[in-house]
Amino acid sequence: MEFSAKQIAEFLNGEVVGNQNVTVNNFSKIEQGEKGTLTFLSNPKYTNFIYSTQADIVLVDKDFTTEQEISATLIKVENAYQALSKLLSLAESIKPTKTGISQKSDIAETAKIGENVFVGAFVTIGENCKIGNNVKIYPNTQIADNVQVKDNSTIYSNVSIYENCVVGERNIIHSGAVIGADGFGFAPDEQGRYNKIPQIGNVVLGNDVEIGANAAIDRATIGSTVIADGVKIDNLVQIAHNVEIGEHTAIAAQTGIAGSTKVGEKCVFAGQVGVAGHLNIAERSIFGAQTGVTSHIKEAGGVYQGSPHMPVGNFRRSSIALKQLPETLQKIYQMERELKLKN
Amino acid sequence: MEFSAKQIAEFLNGEVVGNQNVTVNNFSKIEQGEKGTLTFLSNPKYTNFIYSTQADIVLVDKDFTTEQEISATLIKVENAYQALSKLLSLAESIKPTKTGISQKSDIAETAKIGENVFVGAFVTIGENCKIGNNVKIYPNTQIADNVQVKDNSTIYSNVSIYENCVVGERNIIHSGAVIGADGFGFAPDEQGRYNKIPQIGNVVLGNDVEIGANAAIDRATIGSTVIADGVKIDNLVQIAHNVEIGEHTAIAAQTGIAGSTKVGEKCVFAGQVGVAGHLNIAERSIFGAQTGVTSHIKEAGGVYQGSPHMPVGNFRRSSIALKQLPETLQKIYQMERELKLKN
Amino acid sequence: MEFSAKQIAEFLNGEVVGNQNVTVNNFSKIEQGEKGTLTFLSNPKYTNFIYSTQADIVLVDKDFTTEQEISATLIKVENAYQALSKLLSLAESIKPTKTGISQKSDIAETAKIGENVFVGAFVTIGENCKIGNNVKIYPNTQIADNVQVKDNSTIYSNVSIYENCVVGERNIIHSGAVIGADGFGFAPDEQGRYNKIPQIGNVVLGNDVEIGANAAIDRATIGSTVIADGVKIDNLVQIAHNVEIGEHTAIAAQTGIAGSTKVGEKCVFAGQVGVAGHLNIAERSIFGAQTGVTSHIKEAGGVYQGSPHMPVGNFRRSSIALKQLPETLQKIYQMERELKLKN
Repeated sequence: MEFSAKQIAEFLNGEVVGNQNVTVNNFSKIEQGEKGTLTFLSNPKYTNFIYSTQADIVLVDKDFTTEQEISATLIKVENAYQALSKLLSLAESIKPTKTGISQKSDIAETAKIGENVFVGAFVTIGENCKIGNNVKIYPNTQIADNVQVKDNSTIYSNVSIYENCVVGERNIIHSGAVIGADGFGFAPDEQGRYNKIPQIGNVVLGNDVEIGANAAIDRATIGSTVIADGVKIDNLVQIAHNVEIGEHTAIAAQTGIAGSTKVGEKCVFAGQVGVAGHLNIAERSIFGAQTGVTSHIKEAGGVYQGSPHMPVGNFRRSSIALKQLPETLQKIYQMERELKLKN
Repeated sequence: MEFSAKQIAEFLNGEVVGNQNVTVNNFSKIEQGEKGTLTFLSNPKYTNFIYSTQADIVLVDKDFTTEQEISATLIKVENAYQALSKLLSLAESIKPTKTGISQKSDIAETAKIGENVFVGAFVTIGENCKIGNNVKIYPNTQIADNVQVKDNSTIYSNVSIYENCVVGERNIIHSGAVIGADGFGFAPDEQGRYNKIPQIGNVVLGNDVEIGANAAIDRATIGSTVIADGVKIDNLVQIAHNVEIGEHTAIAAQTGIAGSTKVGEKCVFAGQVGVAGHLNIAERSIFGAQTGVTSHIKEAGGVYQGSPHMPVGNFRRSSIALKQLPETLQKIYQMERELKLKN
Repeated sequence: MEFSAKQIAEFLNGEVVGNQNVTVNNFSKIEQGEKGTLTFLSNPKYTNFIYSTQADIVLVDKDFTTEQEISATLIKVENAYQALSKLLSLAESIKPTKTGISQKSDIAETAKIGENVFVGAFVTIGENCKIGNNVKIYPNTQIADNVQVKDNSTIYSNVSIYENCVVGERNIIHSGAVIGADGFGFAPDEQGRYNKIPQIGNVVLGNDVEIGANAAIDRATIGSTVIADGVKIDNLVQIAHNVEIGEHTAIAAQTGIAGSTKVGEKCVFAGQVGVAGHLNIAERSIFGAQTGVTSHIKEAGGVYQGSPHMPVGNFRRSSIALKQLPETLQKIYQMERELKLKN
């Protein structure tokens, strides 16, 4: 389907600068823009490309001003990235979606399956499961006994959901994710051998949660590991037993959160962050990549980096000082010599 | 089923303090305790909750003394966490378990299957496999040719075990784990292109090993990657080719151990530790979270942290000094000025 | 099959030192060598074992000279590790390989399957897929709609490949890898809630790519995440949306590369490296384990370590200085006292 700049601007409530009749039928990246496509400029690092892109339409923030001649038609909107997202969502919504229950799946007779559900080949759904309306479960996923998956959730292929776990509404769980494996709980005996502590709790995912590929969220020893509404978890993230993640917190790839830690709402974890166990992390805390969080965070809204963590400004100054430390040592040795000479 | 404080105390060889006739039928966490449940106090950080918990029974260490009035009945035991574990194990042991071989599995005719085995739907078991007695294999797991799984082991869903690997007795392998993929071995040619070194060895897991969700243990180039008896490996851990892990070592989530490293017995790795290749790590070494181990550890029983690793006391002092380094630099500049002024 | 030292030396174009008639039928590690096997010496750390190994034949580099009496027969070659690789490849090439299409797979009628293809049980292949000649797809792998897998590629079990992705020729994709899950892209609204940015691009893998177990390579938001020819990616690696990895780059386990970063050719990433998003990394850059790359790398061929990254020599000196920092602080306090005394 083709849309003109005029049509798109109307849909986005934006303003056309340039030829309002130019049409596009696909999206492209600004640095690789092709004829007949729409692209966007959001990150200022890419501003230069707007003058050379072959894309016919570029979404820009409304305060964007051109500094050179430009061949593309611009559509000025409140927020270019959000506007792009709106267009991408429109494009997705007109794609055909999977429906029907594969004859090659294995669904327990006691499972209750809602309306308009897709179950792919080689999916297993255990005893007493409740699968809501409009749920999509892709091939080779295993849903163990007594699991509840609420309405409008999508579970991709090769996912494992252990027994008694709960998946909220409008969740997206990507391939290879494991929800509800045993927490890492052992009691050492006198000889230093580990006896397993049975993990009889579960995992409860709220609504609008997204879980990345090959992420692992362990079941609680007792009670629930809780991922609250709106939490977004990236690939290869580890959430240990009895952790609680507050609403609308985002956790980037390869971050790990150790057992029983409670994370407040609207926190942000960049990639490869580690958080020790049994901590309380105040709401709206932000952690830079590779941060190691070793103690409670009591004040809301702080920004941290380093391992062990420190305020990000401190981390930046300390990192520069660390890089210069060999030269600083030379200076100290010299001062020491001078002092000794004077004595 | 309901049990009274008196019955539980007898089972645990403990002492009741309070109403010995109060009954419970479930477990709860001390901070969320509900009527009719049993909880425990082991970590002193949670001591305050014992005075407010709604749980009817609390397991405590025998040296615990109350500092306020308390409504719950206490059961004093040698070790509250171990006693809890014993009760949880009892609860697990009375749950029904999976049995039978699914008609929807795919088992090679040359595979030998023991007695009382569970094989879920869409499991594949390859040629010449030997599956011991009481083994449980959950749906969608693939066991390739010539794999041996010894008695009483449990393999959860979506696990992949490559050919020729050996799984010991009483192992627990969680969903998504991959046992025996090729090691990362390449020989670069003159142009810097990589030629694959075939990886013809295997992985041998000892008895009482637990492997976490989405962990990866690579096969040896030649010979075996060896995980000894009693080793516990958490989620998303990477064990490279030809590594050997000694008995009763515990490795927390997202740790990675590079090729050919030998780890002694009863070591402990916290989360996100990295260990370089071709190292020997002495027994009972302990590594804090995010440690980067870059050289042999020759003395047994040391505790390390930092990247590169150093003794943990040194790490703590260095970390504090690093945080203060910007101020220290100011001080050095000032001293330098003073010295120059005096010259 | 048995081969004599003479036969092996001829195949490798090497020189026998010792008994040319001794025969072997298997490989072993030098430190565990058994009678009737061939081993190799490449890493000088293992030189001592050559005098005690029970292996009958040892491949050595041609400049190797014995310093003690030695019982094994040596074969001197240009490069012992490459020669071993050649022998291992020979051994692999004579193993029987899997063929045929399992009746228990689920292949869409619109999919085109090449010649001499292996498709294991419980594999799903979606609509309009193109599977090349000599491709092997192991059990429980899901290949979604419109995926292309080119000739001679091997995809192990429990892999998930999302729709529209492209796998090149002679790829090896290990178990649990996820190719093409959604990138981690969200636009926060005014209340700090995340709206998903649809990820409508794909992943394109070049030729001769190897992807490790449980690795995750996300699809692009728009356009393609690109892994160029000859790239080798280890287990549990995260490649985010819109990343481009240049030819013949090697990425070791648990490394993560954030969104839209472009990595040049022939780079090397050791384990657990993190690279921030939207960066350009010059060709032939080398990053030590646990490096945190926080800015563009503009010069080719540099070697870096540390978090944030610095040149490796700087990192080593800074690390030593950091370890000594507590003592250095004492020295500074003492100098300060001396200066004050003098004033």
